[in-house]
Amino acid sequence: MSEKSTYLVLSLPPFQASLFMNEQNPVIPSRFDVVVVGGGHAGAEAAYACAKGGLQTVLISMNLDTLGQMSCNPAIGGIAKGHMVREIDALGGIMGRVIDETGIHFKMLNRSKGPAVWAPRAQAEKKAYQNVVKWTLEETPNLSLRQDTVNSLLIENDAVVGVVTGRGHEIAGRAVILTTGTFLNGLIHIGEYQAKSGRISESSAIGLSDCLAHYGFALGRLKTGTPPRVLKKSIDFSKTEVQPPDEIPQPFSYATQAIRQQQIDCYITYTNAEAHRLILDNLDRAPMYSGQIQSTGPRYCPSIEDKVVRFTDRERHHIFIEPEGIRTGEVYLNGVSTSLPEEIQWKLIRSCRGLEEAEIMKPGYAVEYDYVDPRELGPDLQTKKIRHLYFAGQINGTTGYEEAAAQGLMAGINVLRSLRGEAPFVLSRGEAYIGVLVDDLVYKGVEDPYRMFTSRAEHRLLLRQDNADRRLMKYGHELGLITDDDFARMVDRYARIEGIRKKIYATGMRPLPEFDALLAEKGIPRTDQMFGKTVDSFLRRPEVQLEDVQVFVPEVMQLDEDHRRILEMEVKYEGYVKREMENIERREKARQIVIPADFDYDSLTAMKKEAREKLKRLRPVDLDAASRISGVDPPDIDLIHMRLLQLSGRNA
Amino acid sequence: MSEKSTYLVLSLPPFQASLFMNEQNPVIPSRFDVVVVGGGHAGAEAAYACAKGGLQTVLISMNLDTLGQMSCNPAIGGIAKGHMVREIDALGGIMGRVIDETGIHFKMLNRSKGPAVWAPRAQAEKKAYQNVVKWTLEETPNLSLRQDTVNSLLIENDAVVGVVTGRGHEIAGRAVILTTGTFLNGLIHIGEYQAKSGRISESSAIGLSDCLAHYGFALGRLKTGTPPRVLKKSIDFSKTEVQPPDEIPQPFSYATQAIRQQQIDCYITYTNAEAHRLILDNLDRAPMYSGQIQSTGPRYCPSIEDKVVRFTDRERHHIFIEPEGIRTGEVYLNGVSTSLPEEIQWKLIRSCRGLEEAEIMKPGYAVEYDYVDPRELGPDLQTKKIRHLYFAGQINGTTGYEEAAAQGLMAGINVLRSLRGEAPFVLSRGEAYIGVLVDDLVYKGVEDPYRMFTSRAEHRLLLRQDNADRRLMKYGHELGLITDDDFARMVDRYARIEGIRKKIYATGMRPLPEFDALLAEKGIPRTDQMFGKTVDSFLRRPEVQLEDVQVFVPEVMQLDEDHRRILEMEVKYEGYVKREMENIERREKARQIVIPADFDYDSLTAMKKEAREKLKRLRPVDLDAASRISGVDPPDIDLIHMRLLQLSGRNA
Repeated sequence: MSEKSTYLVLSLPPFQASLFMNEQNPVIPSRFDVVVVGGGHAGAEAAYACAKGGLQTVLISMNLDTLGQMSCNPAIGGIAKGHMVREIDALGGIMGRVIDETGIHFKMLNRSKGPAVWAPRAQAEKKAYQNVVKWTLEETPNLSLRQDTVNSLLIENDAVVGVVTGRGHEIAGRAVILTTGTFLNGLIHIGEYQAKSGRISESSAIGLSDCLAHYGFALGRLKTGTPPRVLKKSIDFSKTEVQPPDEIPQPFSYATQAIRQQQIDCYITYTNAEAHRLILDNLDRAPMYSGQIQSTGPRYCPSIEDKVVRFTDRERHHIFIEPEGIRTGEVYLNGVSTSLPEEIQWKLIRSCRGLEEAEIMKPGYAVEYDYVDPRELGPDLQTKKIRHLYFAGQINGTTGYEEAAAQGLMAGINVLRSLRGEAPFVLSRGEAYIGVLVDDLVYKGVEDPYRMFTSRAEHRLLLRQDNADRRLMKYGHELGLITDDDFARMVDRYARIEGIRKKIYATGMRPLPEFDALLAEKGIPRTDQMFGKTVDSFLRRPEVQLEDVQVFVPEVMQLDEDHRRILEMEVKYEGYVKREMENIERREKARQIVIPADFDYDSLTAMKKEAREKLKRLRPVDLDAASRISGVDPPDIDLIHMRLLQLSGRNA
Repeated sequence: MSEKSTYLVLSLPPFQASLFMNEQNPVIPSRFDVVVVGGGHAGAEAAYACAKGGLQTVLISMNLDTLGQMSCNPAIGGIAKGHMVREIDALGGIMGRVIDETGIHFKMLNRSKGPAVWAPRAQAEKKAYQNVVKWTLEETPNLSLRQDTVNSLLIENDAVVGVVTGRGHEIAGRAVILTTGTFLNGLIHIGEYQAKSGRISESSAIGLSDCLAHYGFALGRLKTGTPPRVLKKSIDFSKTEVQPPDEIPQPFSYATQAIRQQQIDCYITYTNAEAHRLILDNLDRAPMYSGQIQSTGPRYCPSIEDKVVRFTDRERHHIFIEPEGIRTGEVYLNGVSTSLPEEIQWKLIRSCRGLEEAEIMKPGYAVEYDYVDPRELGPDLQTKKIRHLYFAGQINGTTGYEEAAAQGLMAGINVLRSLRGEAPFVLSRGEAYIGVLVDDLVYKGVEDPYRMFTSRAEHRLLLRQDNADRRLMKYGHELGLITDDDFARMVDRYARIEGIRKKIYATGMRPLPEFDALLAEKGIPRTDQMFGKTVDSFLRRPEVQLEDVQVFVPEVMQLDEDHRRILEMEVKYEGYVKREMENIERREKARQIVIPADFDYDSLTAMKKEAREKLKRLRPVDLDAASRISGVDPPDIDLIHMRLLQLSGRNA
């Protein structure tokens, strides 16, 4: 028991569960179903899902006042990321509801394109966002919150049975979820300055990495960065471009009726030749280029020094000036993430239009941290080496709040199912961006911090932001994370859409004066052939919108705007969707072909070496998984498939 | 320049200002009028006053997200403390306005007693309070905010000329105000656990103490503590007593029209014999009793272990259950500050009614920190050893947000006046609690963390919470911290009161049927003598209120409730007030008798040794100051006074 522990347990071997596991009535409640380590976007979702699902859960965070903190940009969503937030919401996570309550600048991206690629994004009132996360966790039944660090894991027979905290407490858990963010051996860089810190002015977590290394986990170093924060009053906004929010903000959560928060503008300015020259002149003092930082940063969210070096032909880069809240005077400069020395940061910022007098409150910085190769995980985010141990978020090599939250939720759900004795919950790549995320991580691994893109999904026409509820809410409901009411509303919504869809396919076109007027207005020639067909054929014309078919099917106007767009897409993209569904079905069938754990890859002499080595190392469970390993191509899959057919023939 | 500095300046001698003082155009703006170190309640007021007064000011804080944080109880005000908040407000400080905007449970204490001793207090929405402090500072013109630590001071010819930060920046200031709170070599204790930390989960400030010691400042150690925070959902409120807020919340600030925030209840429970026995049984593990902590804690805000040990006859102690906000699930247990080991804290809390299942989120802890003997300071809070260096808040050995804020404001005002070439701004003991505070600190010093009480003021009948504006707003206005409008409103307010007061003294009583009814109702015998006198004589009767004299002076009802109480007190306490004013005048006269700096105390052989030693060490500037040194009694003052008269006779 903790009474016997010294106050700083910097433990390495031997790891063993102590007597507390047998105690019936510890002084400090120390026996939980689940221990969640870390309270960022991953930890919050993980803890919420477990507790909501009925597990006795404890979340341990270094500082409970920074639960849900937005360490980098004060915004949620964006292309592919916004889709994942909708998926998290459909599964019963909290991120969508929190941003709906605290968003101050909603914008549906890609609105000029077809609704199939629309993507929701919102700036947050940063402090309110983290408050609402904290409040949500505080009020969730079955969830305890403890302010402490975790220094090591308690392991017994290759299964985790608990953790030891920095203040010497042993806390037992039937499962442990690590969501350590940038805190594992976090090291901050600002020019030549370095500090052991997972976030500026905060500590880093020492000890836990050694513990993971001791158990043979493949640890690596990654790097991420953040731009300077400046005083709003020091910016001349008259020299910047105004970026207004959407007039009617669209909620992220299916449960949100309307956005009630005041909405405010953002602003845009640009870097310029002088700024770029300044950066190039000082590359020897940039930790990323001086050799001070060796680890890899996010390829698709580069620092300004990276952008200037890599895109030499670009004369300027965007700086999105994002308020961190309605009344706060602190402003985030999205686009100029940097770890240059502070005096270069000041020169750089002040060389930009509107920022000539800008006052930096907090410098930009880079942070290096430990991560674990996510191929150490199964598709349920459980480690292969230690049972009941799960990882989620940046520890798995990802970047982004949404990626972290998605993994946290999936880890939480899988703990829930595992402790209930149920099968793992794995989303397929055709079902959800979250499926793509987990699948990419655990089979392909990462070389730089992994960020989601629509291009990573094979079936992105199906994975729209609007239909996440139809795709996933059934799972959230089964798991007990979505209420019966919310679920029933979803079912009813799509039933109504389906009813009208059927009517569109069943209703024949006929000559009507209003229809003639519509054709004239749209410049569509009136032909006799039109009138032999049903309404869907007309709707599939590019210039026709759902509203136009109300002359034949007036019920379409009973649907609200969102649902009209969904129905319109279903009809217009019917052919594509059908083909996509067939693709998915084919994949699902291949997925069912299991590769035995002792499959002899060496016997496939025709297979190229890279593929054979990777397959031997990763040992995918089935053909589908095998097919998605980088370097394993369709001919390799065919070789395995043929051999499996031979084997099953022999055994039969 | 900072470019040349290494990133971690752990500097000790030689301290010298570097070349940057001569540079015209530093890359990072590094030349300020004032550098404020720390952003708690003292630092916030100091920085605001300086910047508002037109000085180019920079506030440097380890973490700008914790500006204005309530490290201990989420409340402002109370007896004597609430008075100081009114005084801070009248002088133009921010504390009153911030709590008015964020208070969620206002209560005028002592309301059952006469209005002369009423004292305002309010629970705060803790996170909102610190947000509003941050927003206020961010929007204040002339004020820069920098997130960094301060490791050492730059001194030239016994004057401070700047600071060196943890990231190696030299920042020049014509004056420097240190408000280091509990962070100077902060050391946290929870049972046997210790951590270098000024507040749980935060860093401590290392380096600055060494620098102060190097310059010969007398450093000491003090201790303070805080209780555990628990999850609201784990409390059974049905077993506690409800403490409702005032129905009509009274603002702290004279500028606030009305409190618009929702008001909520607090709750009360109690410790008991079992809890006390538990504490006594574990005293050997209490850092305050085991010898682990040597320094002195606040006598009047003791830990629960102190209370149980000192007041053995008390069967129970109050626990005020204070929500940290309207929606947060985190609750503060006011009354059980403790540094007992965590498992004892759990047992202790859970032994109390309503807390049987309480879940501790953050343990209580004690923190030891360095302070400087405040007798190192002049009455302007400037150090005697190093010119232009000012101290405010816990570094001076005080405890409490209000005490800190008051000193921060006074230090800021004195920097303002000093840099304008004006005389120090010193409030007398008869003018303000703030005068008492500063006077006590700089002449008497502290032996334990100093907390304000009404009993510390000789003239507390004058120092009411209602009349702080009349006492002090003229100063705030002169300093430019109070707007012309607010000042004019105050003048007009008291002119109206004064007009009606005069009417009361000028109006004769005469027989009226309504008056007879009033007498009957109050049970006051009707006598003929009544009618020779003016209305004030009737109002001075204990059972008569101002409203009762409207039969003669109907204008009294034109005043609002607050101002009626003020006028009523002025009449009722006229005699006391007159005598108090005479006392003050006598003191003020004595104050004018200056004691030469080379006064030969040794020649006063009749003086008792303790007084002589203290006078020689402290060298008070005048008789008044001398009279308030602990251990210096009226006969000692008489001896000095007589010798001074002899000397002046000889010189004449």
